[in-house]
Amino acid sequence: MSKNERVILAYSGGLDTSCILVWLIQEGYDVICYLANIGQNEDFGAAEAKAMCLGAKKIIIEDLRENFIDDYVWPSIRAGLIYEDRYLLGTSLARPCIASGLVRAAIRENANFISHGATGKGNDQVRFELACYSLHPTVQIIAPWRLPEFFSRFAGRQALFEFAAANNIPLPVTPKNPWSCDANLMHISYESGILENPDQEAPETLYQMTSALETSPNDPTVLEITFDKGNPVSLKNTKTNEVVTEPLTLFTRLNEIAGRHGVGRIDIVENRFLGLKSRGIYETPAGTVLYQAHLDLEALTMDREVRKIKQNLQQKMADLVYCGFWFSPEFDFIRQCVDASQKCVDGTVRVSLFKGQVRILGRRSQNSLYNQELVSMDEHGGYDPVDAGGFIRAHAVRLKEYYRVKTEKE
Amino acid sequence: MSKNERVILAYSGGLDTSCILVWLIQEGYDVICYLANIGQNEDFGAAEAKAMCLGAKKIIIEDLRENFIDDYVWPSIRAGLIYEDRYLLGTSLARPCIASGLVRAAIRENANFISHGATGKGNDQVRFELACYSLHPTVQIIAPWRLPEFFSRFAGRQALFEFAAANNIPLPVTPKNPWSCDANLMHISYESGILENPDQEAPETLYQMTSALETSPNDPTVLEITFDKGNPVSLKNTKTNEVVTEPLTLFTRLNEIAGRHGVGRIDIVENRFLGLKSRGIYETPAGTVLYQAHLDLEALTMDREVRKIKQNLQQKMADLVYCGFWFSPEFDFIRQCVDASQKCVDGTVRVSLFKGQVRILGRRSQNSLYNQELVSMDEHGGYDPVDAGGFIRAHAVRLKEYYRVKTEKE
Amino acid sequence: MSKNERVILAYSGGLDTSCILVWLIQEGYDVICYLANIGQNEDFGAAEAKAMCLGAKKIIIEDLRENFIDDYVWPSIRAGLIYEDRYLLGTSLARPCIASGLVRAAIRENANFISHGATGKGNDQVRFELACYSLHPTVQIIAPWRLPEFFSRFAGRQALFEFAAANNIPLPVTPKNPWSCDANLMHISYESGILENPDQEAPETLYQMTSALETSPNDPTVLEITFDKGNPVSLKNTKTNEVVTEPLTLFTRLNEIAGRHGVGRIDIVENRFLGLKSRGIYETPAGTVLYQAHLDLEALTMDREVRKIKQNLQQKMADLVYCGFWFSPEFDFIRQCVDASQKCVDGTVRVSLFKGQVRILGRRSQNSLYNQELVSMDEHGGYDPVDAGGFIRAHAVRLKEYYRVKTEKE
Amino acid sequence: MSKNERVILAYSGGLDTSCILVWLIQEGYDVICYLANIGQNEDFGAAEAKAMCLGAKKIIIEDLRENFIDDYVWPSIRAGLIYEDRYLLGTSLARPCIASGLVRAAIRENANFISHGATGKGNDQVRFELACYSLHPTVQIIAPWRLPEFFSRFAGRQALFEFAAANNIPLPVTPKNPWSCDANLMHISYESGILENPDQEAPETLYQMTSALETSPNDPTVLEITFDKGNPVSLKNTKTNEVVTEPLTLFTRLNEIAGRHGVGRIDIVENRFLGLKSRGIYETPAGTVLYQAHLDLEALTMDREVRKIKQNLQQKMADLVYCGFWFSPEFDFIRQCVDASQKCVDGTVRVSLFKGQVRILGRRSQNSLYNQELVSMDEHGGYDPVDAGGFIRAHAVRLKEYYRVKTEKE
Repeated sequence: MSKNERVILAYSGGLDTSCILVWLIQEGYDVICYLANIGQNEDFGAAEAKAMCLGAKKIIIEDLRENFIDDYVWPSIRAGLIYEDRYLLGTSLARPCIASGLVRAAIRENANFISHGATGKGNDQVRFELACYSLHPTVQIIAPWRLPEFFSRFAGRQALFEFAAANNIPLPVTPKNPWSCDANLMHISYESGILENPDQEAPETLYQMTSALETSPNDPTVLEITFDKGNPVSLKNTKTNEVVTEPLTLFTRLNEIAGRHGVGRIDIVENRFLGLKSRGIYETPAGTVLYQAHLDLEALTMDREVRKIKQNLQQKMADLVYCGFWFSPEFDFIRQCVDASQKCVDGTVRVSLFKGQVRILGRRSQNSLYNQELVSMDEHGGYDPVDAGGFIRAHAVRLKEYYRVKTEKE
Repeated sequence: MSKNERVILAYSGGLDTSCILVWLIQEGYDVICYLANIGQNEDFGAAEAKAMCLGAKKIIIEDLRENFIDDYVWPSIRAGLIYEDRYLLGTSLARPCIASGLVRAAIRENANFISHGATGKGNDQVRFELACYSLHPTVQIIAPWRLPEFFSRFAGRQALFEFAAANNIPLPVTPKNPWSCDANLMHISYESGILENPDQEAPETLYQMTSALETSPNDPTVLEITFDKGNPVSLKNTKTNEVVTEPLTLFTRLNEIAGRHGVGRIDIVENRFLGLKSRGIYETPAGTVLYQAHLDLEALTMDREVRKIKQNLQQKMADLVYCGFWFSPEFDFIRQCVDASQKCVDGTVRVSLFKGQVRILGRRSQNSLYNQELVSMDEHGGYDPVDAGGFIRAHAVRLKEYYRVKTEKE
Repeated sequence: MSKNERVILAYSGGLDTSCILVWLIQEGYDVICYLANIGQNEDFGAAEAKAMCLGAKKIIIEDLRENFIDDYVWPSIRAGLIYEDRYLLGTSLARPCIASGLVRAAIRENANFISHGATGKGNDQVRFELACYSLHPTVQIIAPWRLPEFFSRFAGRQALFEFAAANNIPLPVTPKNPWSCDANLMHISYESGILENPDQEAPETLYQMTSALETSPNDPTVLEITFDKGNPVSLKNTKTNEVVTEPLTLFTRLNEIAGRHGVGRIDIVENRFLGLKSRGIYETPAGTVLYQAHLDLEALTMDREVRKIKQNLQQKMADLVYCGFWFSPEFDFIRQCVDASQKCVDGTVRVSLFKGQVRILGRRSQNSLYNQELVSMDEHGGYDPVDAGGFIRAHAVRLKEYYRVKTEKE
Repeated sequence: MSKNERVILAYSGGLDTSCILVWLIQEGYDVICYLANIGQNEDFGAAEAKAMCLGAKKIIIEDLRENFIDDYVWPSIRAGLIYEDRYLLGTSLARPCIASGLVRAAIRENANFISHGATGKGNDQVRFELACYSLHPTVQIIAPWRLPEFFSRFAGRQALFEFAAANNIPLPVTPKNPWSCDANLMHISYESGILENPDQEAPETLYQMTSALETSPNDPTVLEITFDKGNPVSLKNTKTNEVVTEPLTLFTRLNEIAGRHGVGRIDIVENRFLGLKSRGIYETPAGTVLYQAHLDLEALTMDREVRKIKQNLQQKMADLVYCGFWFSPEFDFIRQCVDASQKCVDGTVRVSLFKGQVRILGRRSQNSLYNQELVSMDEHGGYDPVDAGGFIRAHAVRLKEYYRVKTEKE
């Protein structure tokens, strides 16, 4: 590679990307570090100092938290995205958000290269890179953990420690947990290390966003969550009457409350895009509450058949997000479809958070398709029960024919 | 109608079907009551005495509990059936089981008519009747709540009370709850009455199978549930080492344990087959645990793409069960498909039940497709990270083309 | 029924609806006949005279041909609607168009009743009535062929002839074909009578819109059809250079040309909404050409994954149209989705019509996603073949795992 | 690579694989050529002599025609496989059949390598290699057209000619067509060269299996095709009474007849697995007839709802076959599902072949679900038209509610 080519490095401040920073410089690149604030717990000042000290030409720190909530988390809530029935896609949503930032930086800084520290077996490399290729088709990616000269040299963490020591890269002061984790506003994920055995229980000490049920409050918190066109627009604590409406504040506040009640932990085996099964543990407190509340409001305001069609679309959409196709023709298309389904998803859901449980207590909407008069056992409400007989007998015609032919044959 | 035609009446022992029994006799029918034991809490002896006293020619009481577990609940667990993302179909599964019994009775007793007390707006009439028509195409159904001469006469419950009083039909001693409920081994459902307002919370006193979280035990129970071809075959309490394997016992025991921990309550608005939205509350303790455990085991043992295909099939299958198509060509077909997917769903899932939560702690299987060596961050295990680069770039070709054309156009 | 209630009757001028007209008058209704011109071959003046002579209060004749093309046929072409892989839905599309007219008339004329002559086993009753109920929820439908007092009286056509004779209703001068047919701009359908035996071939004399292959021209006609956002906007005969662009003219002209070449006949068994299988024969000359040309243009301009998603939607949409749900929440929704997929479906397809065949000769578009340089065997065009190896090996990881576990087990 | 490693080369006898043979030998491999007879027009003796003369250690020629029909073509007919609504998958079906042969040879000959001449942009490399990896996970693939040392050296065909000349590889005597083609029993495909311009019509001289409509017979041939469990089991010419039943003979005979009538040509743009769009022209005479006849028989014998479910499965299955996943867990699964749907697909379809058209004339089956009595306009046949009214009004409840809420809102 020619000297002095410019690289934007997705920098986290941790050991791996610090080593990559130094390695890239040693390979002759000018490196600009890019660090997005998407709600992770991080000393951004320290990370900046460290990067500059290690030889970065520059470090760009961008606060993407509002962007993350508005343009990634809210669309996911509207769509009701859930991967393989359980995973709320916290990491998957963050990747295209960060990749957008990387591409903006690359264009601004006139850099032809983007580099990241994602491993060669995981989903994140795919999510980062597909987003970069879509948004900036001529960009070139440097993924050190897929380069034999890098991954062979740094096989095992010991080589990394030695490289760090030799290059004045500060080692972490606290001993590393025997697992890896990734945090953003939406969730913290945990995997690898001792979690690689899918039959071994995760230790209680692992969890950072959610309380253990044993220590969570002994009184429920009851919240009213209001949606407009599928977006959360208001969070009200029915006891304190506290109301928050600003998206980032709403989400952060809900994370605190739901986390305190131990809501949103899952331990799953999932299928990665590259075909491997992996075991992951996730904490998604606010996301879990919003997913449940939105699902409940859809049941009230969305027609049955629309719901079925949307359900198929949302499963496809969840797969697309998981696999890194946020910026793709099919995602653009499916997103328009899903948004069309949300026009009437307005209203308020009352939920209780308690001992890890989200329980729906009630729901109301001006667009409710629930007709109490019509469904009541005590009234006819314009509905003639006699019609149901015709409905059933008409449906039975086909069934009778099938069983007639089947019986004749046997 | 000609006199002395024979009717099999789906009899519950309650006020409604007692009145229908007397009304049918008054209309000139010979009535044989049929009462299936599917695990509901019922004094079968009293029900028998009452029916005979009211003029039934005969009462048939059949214990269908094992049949219900083996042929309805287990297939549902294997398939992972859930309606509209939340409802585990407890009532829907019971109806074809009972209808089979009604048809067997009708054939044995040479009766041309089957009668039931289901209302004219609900799903149960459809489930009962479609099953009867499929299994016995020439049968005729008498659904009094759809007959104008009946429902006009008994509009409002007062008329029913008066009819009961006039005909020596015993009235319930305890005042009726301001809602109706339906119970079987799988669940209890609650609807109508005060529950018809979807924004009004259900009172804690409503629940019969599950403890309130406030009073549930302060220690988790950890269970190991073993499946064979998708069927639960063993339930082990890891503390007491109690093991149960017989299906009915296993299910009943799990109901007790999960119910004690408050597991399995939902409060939902759902879409009935007849197009109305209704609000229902359900308690499904054992069903909830088995659904979650089975889902987790599938993630370990089932290929990703098989899972996607099966997921589409199971959603369709859940709709079919909900709408009463248990005995139908499409259900026969889809059931064979789903069962083909279960050949390798063997293994053990460890779950913790605590404060309403089912938490998965670990899982293992001899058919596991999870390859710890392959997925490990510390080893290559035959996987070459370089390939991932080609995988990503090949996927990007299409995306780049799309954005190239899109950008040129703009 | 109270006297002098007003009915809008969907009137065709034929024997059946003439008898219904007289019968409704005899039942005490004021009848306003409604006759839509949707391109069928009809003497509208004669029909008007006949209706008035038989006692109609009024007859409304509306030319809906442009409305039919713009709002029903074009959306169907855009969506690529085809029912059960073969039927292009000619009748299904016409019904909601006519029903809209009926409802408009009912509202304008202050009539509470709408009546039609559709039979009690077919799809058309459903299509008419669901559309009416959606657009005018309080309307009441009189469907004589479902009323026992009507269908019992007129069982067999002889009773109808006698009623006609007794009421001065003119009988058709030409003997009726031994089948029934229904015509509009889009197609003519044939069913019942001798066609009810699905193994009996339809006689060549049946066909009205399409030439027999034996007598069709011995030279192909080559056309260029241009689409804009999925709508046909230009039809050009490449030999004569004749160009038509006005929708109704374009469609009519294409019907003539394609019909002359014998294009668009099918003979199928189909599944009606009410669960019966029926045999139908259809001629859809222009519709067949446009369906094929549009399909081809989509292949050029639509992304592969968007296409898959749209394909699922269009199948659902075709079912909805067939079953009469044109005016429904799910149709509203799915139509928005499909239209979103058509934004780039612009371009020109060259087709040859000859001996019943539509053959695609070529296609071009400014939105083409086909990149000749990229796909060429002779150039790399920015594509690195090495990447394909990684793509394949990455896909193989999952397969190898599956076969490893499967083999170990065996 | 170590000398004298053994390679099984998928050999066609053409220039490309002859050059690859010599190149592999020059690279130090022992090469065993494998040539499958799947119905292509080939001088197998000449191919054998050529391979041995060029230095192959051995050549294996296997007649896979029956295997191809029984295990690949028939399953495809049963499933009704069609890719992107038009392509009958002739090449896609042949690849796993040949790959199986390659793997059998590799195991028998104790070879660790398999090599082929497929290009680096196409689908065939994927189909060959995924099949090989599934069936023989430890095999290694040599794909010269993806190796930079090969494809850089042989960029453009001139270098290949020079290599051939220098190594005594006979050049083709006839000038190469300006396109490439691939033939087997099922079809011939044409692509690249002048066909790369999707707007340029293919010349009539290209076609090898099908007559031009201008020269095809002026009399139709009427055939009766009988299926058993979805498999074609008999082909009868209704004029000559010739009957063939042996699968390979049946298929070959049908190819001749349908080809003579010009049946089965398509010209399409399709989406390759690797994300490129390509233009292909295909001739599939017998496959087209069988596809149409089988589709028609399913309409007669398969329940409507089963059909819908199967339709989704078959689309997925067609994608799998196209993309090379014949040997995969999902294909194994879906194939079982589809086969379960074929249990009753027995019967006979009468088709006319004429001027490129397959027209269905009639169909019959002992498993017919078509009930002529029931559907007849002239009889009730146990069907009460009154029920249809209830059916429609019950369906309208949901629609009325939706429009009520929508109207209130506006």
